[in-house]
Amino acid sequence: METAAGTKQSSLGEEIVARIDALAAISETPEHLARIFLTDEHRRAADLILSWMREAGMSAHLDAIGNVCGRYEGDQPGLPCLMLGSHYDTVRDAGKWDGPLGVITAIACVTDLNRRGKRLPFAIEVVGFADEEGVRFASTLLGSRAVAGTFDTGVLDTRDRAGTSLRDALTQFGLDPDHISNAARARRDLLGYVELHIEQGPVLEEKKLPVGVVTAIAGATRLVANLTGVAGHAGTVPMPLRRDALAGAAECIVAIEQFCKADQAGLVGTVGHISAMPGATNVIPGKVSFTMDIRSQSDAHRKHAVTEILQRIEVIAKRRELTLHVDVTHENRSVPCAAWLTAQIAGAVATEGFAVFELPSGAGHDGMAMVDIADIGMIFVRCRDGISHNPAEHVELVDAETGARVLLRLIENFKPHDAANS
Amino acid sequence: METAAGTKQSSLGEEIVARIDALAAISETPEHLARIFLTDEHRRAADLILSWMREAGMSAHLDAIGNVCGRYEGDQPGLPCLMLGSHYDTVRDAGKWDGPLGVITAIACVTDLNRRGKRLPFAIEVVGFADEEGVRFASTLLGSRAVAGTFDTGVLDTRDRAGTSLRDALTQFGLDPDHISNAARARRDLLGYVELHIEQGPVLEEKKLPVGVVTAIAGATRLVANLTGVAGHAGTVPMPLRRDALAGAAECIVAIEQFCKADQAGLVGTVGHISAMPGATNVIPGKVSFTMDIRSQSDAHRKHAVTEILQRIEVIAKRRELTLHVDVTHENRSVPCAAWLTAQIAGAVATEGFAVFELPSGAGHDGMAMVDIADIGMIFVRCRDGISHNPAEHVELVDAETGARVLLRLIENFKPHDAANS
Repeated sequence: METAAGTKQSSLGEEIVARIDALAAISETPEHLARIFLTDEHRRAADLILSWMREAGMSAHLDAIGNVCGRYEGDQPGLPCLMLGSHYDTVRDAGKWDGPLGVITAIACVTDLNRRGKRLPFAIEVVGFADEEGVRFASTLLGSRAVAGTFDTGVLDTRDRAGTSLRDALTQFGLDPDHISNAARARRDLLGYVELHIEQGPVLEEKKLPVGVVTAIAGATRLVANLTGVAGHAGTVPMPLRRDALAGAAECIVAIEQFCKADQAGLVGTVGHISAMPGATNVIPGKVSFTMDIRSQSDAHRKHAVTEILQRIEVIAKRRELTLHVDVTHENRSVPCAAWLTAQIAGAVATEGFAVFELPSGAGHDGMAMVDIADIGMIFVRCRDGISHNPAEHVELVDAETGARVLLRLIENFKPHDAANS
Repeated sequence: METAAGTKQSSLGEEIVARIDALAAISETPEHLARIFLTDEHRRAADLILSWMREAGMSAHLDAIGNVCGRYEGDQPGLPCLMLGSHYDTVRDAGKWDGPLGVITAIACVTDLNRRGKRLPFAIEVVGFADEEGVRFASTLLGSRAVAGTFDTGVLDTRDRAGTSLRDALTQFGLDPDHISNAARARRDLLGYVELHIEQGPVLEEKKLPVGVVTAIAGATRLVANLTGVAGHAGTVPMPLRRDALAGAAECIVAIEQFCKADQAGLVGTVGHISAMPGATNVIPGKVSFTMDIRSQSDAHRKHAVTEILQRIEVIAKRRELTLHVDVTHENRSVPCAAWLTAQIAGAVATEGFAVFELPSGAGHDGMAMVDIADIGMIFVRCRDGISHNPAEHVELVDAETGARVLLRLIENFKPHDAANS
């Protein structure tokens, strides 16, 4: 649908939904949406997005890692930019909104400005990052790390399941692995990085709000706990003589949940994987392994929580005469959104007539990489039932429209940090 | 070691341990003991046991299902027999005592009687059952069911992992699948069936007793519970909005353990297998499946316990807004040992100078099949740390000796039920 500039408010949302569907049609298989880094689908999606960027009056190109980059000049050429973006790769059996909504909404805003012939005292750039999910090479944020200049060239030797290295995949795609640094941007070129993304959680729905202002991307600690007791015959070992590793793990899982539930500062803790060995119906489990994923927007709070949780499960293991061994498998710090940028996003939300609601992002986003070269801000858009990474992922057209109106309001009212301070 | 009849008390134990080792040398691989039904190892083990039987003065033959059967006539030919036995197949990576101890000890007792030229007013038969563990065809007690005349011919079409049917395996072994009924014995031929077996649990060790008198083979109910909640992102779903199937399962497992621990009548309950889906560190589990194995020597007690446990986990599921679905996958009734036979076993234990300690068998045994044609009794022998189905399975020589002396005393003092009542 191509309408004349500004004919009606719904045009943004309708255009966004149509393009979400157009992009979702580019998939490894028609049944299960999957758009994986450096594949033919990557290429076709990039070409489509680049065409939209150009249609919106932007100069556009594929960068050295496969990101799509569009630039809409300000009221004079060569000005620093407000960078908008998100990613356009997907997980396997994905929803169609996670990532693309941010890219397509940003392009829709530029389209709207361009239709009105509006130029701002800064440039706008839109980036579609090529690999945020990390499906193919088990390393996330490859696209935004290249832009932030923090791409780890050691990852080039990582191989996908078919045995192809990232280096070879780049070459086969027509990119030069030795030139990835060309994708890096300088801090002085960026006034800030703002990403619009679906919430991927149920909080906005619960609050009956179409959009939310993100305060920080939560830090996470992931751990694996191994409990060792004594395996035994399910029929022959009386209850008082058992050292059942699974019963012990179950008590730990209940304790972890209780601790996180009692927290009043947004801590979340999840046991997502468990295995009990030998795992037979008629054998008391002698060994159990389970994971823990602990997140908070405050690093100090998260670290304190991890310490407290470990103390609680140590007490349980000791009382049950189980051996406990815990390894930290992953840790990333919290990435705060810049207060000045968050305030401007909040202003845009209020101006569009919605209550300002702040929430942390429990999921990771490209902003975690972009923060190394720019202050970051994020706008969350409500998604149905909080479901993501699933074909059932859904955003109402009216919420897509609201997200776009907030982003457009932010752009039009945007004051760079120095100017905002002056 | 071949000693003159009755030269010293330790001879029984030493002979038993030597033969346990000789039989353990017959294994699919030298590293991991495995003696599977209708294999070359089965054949070699059968030949060895048959030779021991004949050496002990018994007539001996392989029956129609591959059991080894020896008969030591009483003081006149053709008398009804006291049948002794156990099985000589193993699980994979087995211990060497589970099964063979009962067969070898029974032969050792006959050897001792024969050396002394002692004949009794009844025959003694020793059976080594060919398949108790059910490793190859996933159906247990094939040997004893054939003897009890309860062999289900439908099992003949069951195939092993290599695709060979039981029917073909029997034929290849030189047995005729159509003649399995020839292995069946009549109730009138048996005065009783007594099995000596390692405890496979830690109770006798805890009680510091070498032998125990079994009261019953516990009945068991096995169930699978499926809990369904809502999968979600480990970072984005606040604790109060979660419907975490694994946290719910953990609470159920703790409740099952608590219920069984609080029981004062020997109930045991085990959750041996659990799986959480999707099973990723960063995803709240939406579905969990876990098994329950509930056993008691009293069927009424077990059924009541299953009902109580299901009520408790239903309450947990309901409170957490999880869907609970439970299937019963297996149920077998308790098989009581005959009071008159148990009393004679207890008498033999006491006469040998040990405290009489009665306990149920939580594990299944061939007596579960034999009870269909004979009253049954069982003697348990202490094993180290209660470990079984494991290479670490161990019985001290002195305990093997004690087991043999108790069995021999039982045989020599044995009064058939009618005679005992008269």
